[in-house]
Amino acid sequence: MSSNRHKIPIPTVDIIIEQNSRILMVRRKNEPYKGCLALPGGFVNEGERIEDAATREANEETSLNIGLVEILGVYSDPTRDPRGHLMSTVFVGIISSDNVTEHMQASAGDDAAEIECIYLDALDNSNIAFDHKKILFDYKIWKLSGGTFWSSKNISNTEAV
Amino acid sequence: MSSNRHKIPIPTVDIIIEQNSRILMVRRKNEPYKGCLALPGGFVNEGERIEDAATREANEETSLNIGLVEILGVYSDPTRDPRGHLMSTVFVGIISSDNVTEHMQASAGDDAAEIECIYLDALDNSNIAFDHKKILFDYKIWKLSGGTFWSSKNISNTEAV
Repeated sequence: MSSNRHKIPIPTVDIIIEQNSRILMVRRKNEPYKGCLALPGGFVNEGERIEDAATREANEETSLNIGLVEILGVYSDPTRDPRGHLMSTVFVGIISSDNVTEHMQASAGDDAAEIECIYLDALDNSNIAFDHKKILFDYKIWKLSGGTFWSSKNISNTEAV
Repeated sequence: MSSNRHKIPIPTVDIIIEQNSRILMVRRKNEPYKGCLALPGGFVNEGERIEDAATREANEETSLNIGLVEILGVYSDPTRDPRGHLMSTVFVGIISSDNVTEHMQASAGDDAAEIECIYLDALDNSNIAFDHKKILFDYKIWKLSGGTFWSSKNISNTEAV
């Protein structure tokens, strides 16, 4: 079976990296959601394990080497990205060998213009790209009680926030 | 971005359904792994949320309506399926409204020939398709201590079993 025979959801990864109560976010320099904050992430290549895509994308967009802690969830609502049906596996990561400063230039091009570290609660009032506000809401729940998440899980709770 | 522009991993789902200490497995009637036991599962369609693919595939292969409990993990080693780079999101499900008998004919065609309910420990000595033996090993860990899993996580432990 070839990926070119059928249209299929496109696998991506996003990574939540928290340090000192702040989340590493990327201010997007390109459409869609130009100027908005997004989690570091990107596309998974054929032949690449998704965990390797997560560490590679985190490094490309933030210059950091990270370790993976857990999978927060898999988000695959077909309307979550205007470019097509992109499904994201979201990892919770930790910084393994680098230091992060408050404002750090991203090392690589991609869609990352600038890294910003933002307090989790302050993100509620920020312009957040894609469904990353729901993802960060789910991350707050995860910090309290664990669990895994997907697009249609706890929607009513999310909408109430 | 179109899924046809690049070769990408192909998203699939598999579902672990345990009842009375036994796991619902499908004896495959087609290659690859013809005659081996596999978890119920299949491909995710474009435009379909992965959680909906999981409940649909479980129903197509076992006739059961299931609910989803958690995501066990995302398995994406490019060698895990001889047909190509298939990445599977594995859900833990529960039977929501049907009864399961020890031997039940699958209702739909697909790759399912017959449903068998097998004690988790007995699966160690069965012919298991794909990387589903590792997945079921991870499921045992999950039952003890939770967590989420991926292809390269705890490989040394898995190989020791």
